[in-house]
Amino acid sequence: IMTIQLFFTLKLLLYNISALEPQFREKYFSQTVDHFNFNSMGNGTFSQRYLITDEYWKKSHGPIFFYTGNEGDIWEFALNSGFITELAAQQGALVIFAEHRYYGKSLPFGKDTFSIPQIGLLTVEQALADYAVMITELKEQLGARDCPVIVFGGSYGGMLSVYMRIKYPNIVAGGLAASAPILSTAGLGDSTQFFRDVTADFERVAPECTHAVRGAFHQLKELAERQDYSRIQMEFSLCKPPSSVRDVRQLNGLLRNAFTLMAMLDYPYSTQFMGNMPANPVKVQTTSMNSSNISPAGIVYNSTGVLTCFDLYSLYLECADPTGCGLGSDSLAWDYQINLCYESNNVTDMFPPMSFTERDREFYCSKRWAVVPRPDWLQTQFWGDALSAASNIIFSNGDLDPWANGGVRKSLSSSLIAVNISGGAHHLDLRGSNDADPLSVISARKTEADLIAQDHTEPL
Amino acid sequence: IMTIQLFFTLKLLLYNISALEPQFREKYFSQTVDHFNFNSMGNGTFSQRYLITDEYWKKSHGPIFFYTGNEGDIWEFALNSGFITELAAQQGALVIFAEHRYYGKSLPFGKDTFSIPQIGLLTVEQALADYAVMITELKEQLGARDCPVIVFGGSYGGMLSVYMRIKYPNIVAGGLAASAPILSTAGLGDSTQFFRDVTADFERVAPECTHAVRGAFHQLKELAERQDYSRIQMEFSLCKPPSSVRDVRQLNGLLRNAFTLMAMLDYPYSTQFMGNMPANPVKVQTTSMNSSNISPAGIVYNSTGVLTCFDLYSLYLECADPTGCGLGSDSLAWDYQINLCYESNNVTDMFPPMSFTERDREFYCSKRWAVVPRPDWLQTQFWGDALSAASNIIFSNGDLDPWANGGVRKSLSSSLIAVNISGGAHHLDLRGSNDADPLSVISARKTEADLIAQDHTEPL
Repeated sequence: IMTIQLFFTLKLLLYNISALEPQFREKYFSQTVDHFNFNSMGNGTFSQRYLITDEYWKKSHGPIFFYTGNEGDIWEFALNSGFITELAAQQGALVIFAEHRYYGKSLPFGKDTFSIPQIGLLTVEQALADYAVMITELKEQLGARDCPVIVFGGSYGGMLSVYMRIKYPNIVAGGLAASAPILSTAGLGDSTQFFRDVTADFERVAPECTHAVRGAFHQLKELAERQDYSRIQMEFSLCKPPSSVRDVRQLNGLLRNAFTLMAMLDYPYSTQFMGNMPANPVKVQTTSMNSSNISPAGIVYNSTGVLTCFDLYSLYLECADPTGCGLGSDSLAWDYQINLCYESNNVTDMFPPMSFTERDREFYCSKRWAVVPRPDWLQTQFWGDALSAASNIIFSNGDLDPWANGGVRKSLSSSLIAVNISGGAHHLDLRGSNDADPLSVISARKTEADLIAQDHTEPL
Repeated sequence: IMTIQLFFTLKLLLYNISALEPQFREKYFSQTVDHFNFNSMGNGTFSQRYLITDEYWKKSHGPIFFYTGNEGDIWEFALNSGFITELAAQQGALVIFAEHRYYGKSLPFGKDTFSIPQIGLLTVEQALADYAVMITELKEQLGARDCPVIVFGGSYGGMLSVYMRIKYPNIVAGGLAASAPILSTAGLGDSTQFFRDVTADFERVAPECTHAVRGAFHQLKELAERQDYSRIQMEFSLCKPPSSVRDVRQLNGLLRNAFTLMAMLDYPYSTQFMGNMPANPVKVQTTSMNSSNISPAGIVYNSTGVLTCFDLYSLYLECADPTGCGLGSDSLAWDYQINLCYESNNVTDMFPPMSFTERDREFYCSKRWAVVPRPDWLQTQFWGDALSAASNIIFSNGDLDPWANGGVRKSLSSSLIAVNISGGAHHLDLRGSNDADPLSVISARKTEADLIAQDHTEPL
């Protein structure tokens, strides 16, 4: 979910865009550090950031659209979820984007936030309680006690929207969970699904492409076996030649991640979300691969053209997320949270066999964070696929998105609606309207708008 | 909720009754100490006690009846909830009574359990997570993966049953919450309600009684103002004369609590639940009060006839629960948990004015436990009266029970059913059948049995 970012590019991006969309006010909320233990080290408050705009709000009557922030700076989500403000304008809603604890500027323990044991208060339950408390108190402050709340989120943020609705329906009337892999993250599903679906995206655009990629990875393997490191350096424009099995594994991970990002972010126009991406990056890559260079690194890691070579370890962090981690403190937090065991096998996908078992994860988490993962916990705590008691949730997914099949693809009842977006990448529907939008996403947004209007006009 | 117990009487009782009902096996479950923080001091497991009997179970098919244990030794609840085993015999259910963490023998930190900060892991959320994990794992162990679970609980245990159904409907198909004051504990309601309803119980039986009680408390007040402590000692059979304002307040509290217990436990036959009580104790008291002695202390505190005088501080613990605390470690845990501000005022009730404000509570909790209460938390976390998203819960209450009007008295939907028991005291319906049962409770149990059968025969 979280992925590689050139952090300087991102920073540049954020400064630019905050200037472009001045309607959000940036504010801070005094939040309880530990909701679940009155005697713990977290016996105090911290400043949790949120963004708010009331320019579309029918004061004291209109609904509240609340984005349940996920693993990053909240501005990045606010600036890439234009659908929410467009819908707010239509439906007279107040809009709030709340930043997830331990990300962005919402650090409960300042510079000690990522130490052990301070990191221990980074949990989904605490994040949900943050949002529940924040919504309740802001409603009081804003004279919005009777205004129904609709939650929105993409990816892990979409999971949080689902969880808010199922755990706090007293506070949340409905939710739109875009590209939320609530099943795969709960351990339901198939560890080969993710990279199989990444592969399928490339195959769809150019069937011959996957053969080229397999060939290139094979070639890399042979060069590595021969320890022809200078050739590897040249082929992949590395700043330094690799010098160990670990370096080669890191290169394989970096390349696999670049393909993953292109599949996830295969939008029909260029974007600046999780780095810079050209329009239709999968197509761009498959086209350029017909020439001699198969490396996707240029598109993903050097879209600004600033780099003259790639450094293996500054671009891509070795971490507990098999789909890749970013850099900076946000990726530290994500490394602590992530709970996936996706693997590639070179049979059902085009990548080299790279496994990541529960045992690998346990070893990593014990060593890095002094914790032992609990693989069954999400299913116990957040219901897994036993959702029959839930209601008023939209599960949207795009068929280009490798995360899609880890989520809910079929409607489960008349108020648990699956919206599938043909030709849609990772939560495309949350993005603002664009001339290049496929009809499918225009229609999906219309469906979502109608369902959301129902949720907040129904008597509570 | 938790109240005065002569702990030696209770111990005697438990030895007796365990012998009477040998079908429960006592077992221990290896439970996670801290479900919500992987890096905390609670980074391990403890032994959580539970009782189980499969003698009525249709193996692998029949439902599981799971009692969500509350503030005490689990044997006490198992031995005073005969309805559950009677129903299990009818419906072919497996029966489990789970002991609440920090009570009975389920102490997460051994002898340090009640120290600061160890006490901090005593929360409702942890207790619910315990039950969720225990149910999930026991189902696996017992080959009961497809067996629907129905939760049962009385009083605070009934609140836990409600919370299990609303927070874990993936695990729990339905619940019977008997005498569960989910509204008053969440701060919804009126702080004068409880003692008004205690008073009404006595007024119903003998209207002149409340005048006698008021008169007696007035007399006590005058004696105290005159500092005629030896007369007070004689009138109330105290072991030592009181010698301070605090002692007199303690005596007032002890007396008020005795009336409370008689009202709560006003069963039509003698019981051994939370101490020994004769049949119809309110009637017994009002009858005996026509003579010169108005003190209820004999009935409540000396039903065994063992005591020759009453010691103010060994019978009744000064604590954060205005309805009274018991003795021993269970009452320590309860003192930490309890979250009520009931008060008597001598206007709407027959007791002396004894207030207990949020401020008093905050002062007490800070000093005693180094914690600051969060009065709004139960309403945020467990929905308060915003229950429209819930289903498959029975809220039963008896009209003799002063806790009743802190709970749900009217059905909220076709699957949130209020069952009101005329002439019923505190969760009378959970008790086993008795020849002295009023028709109302026989009928209530029939209704409950039918609703519970629906819950576990519906497709999940």
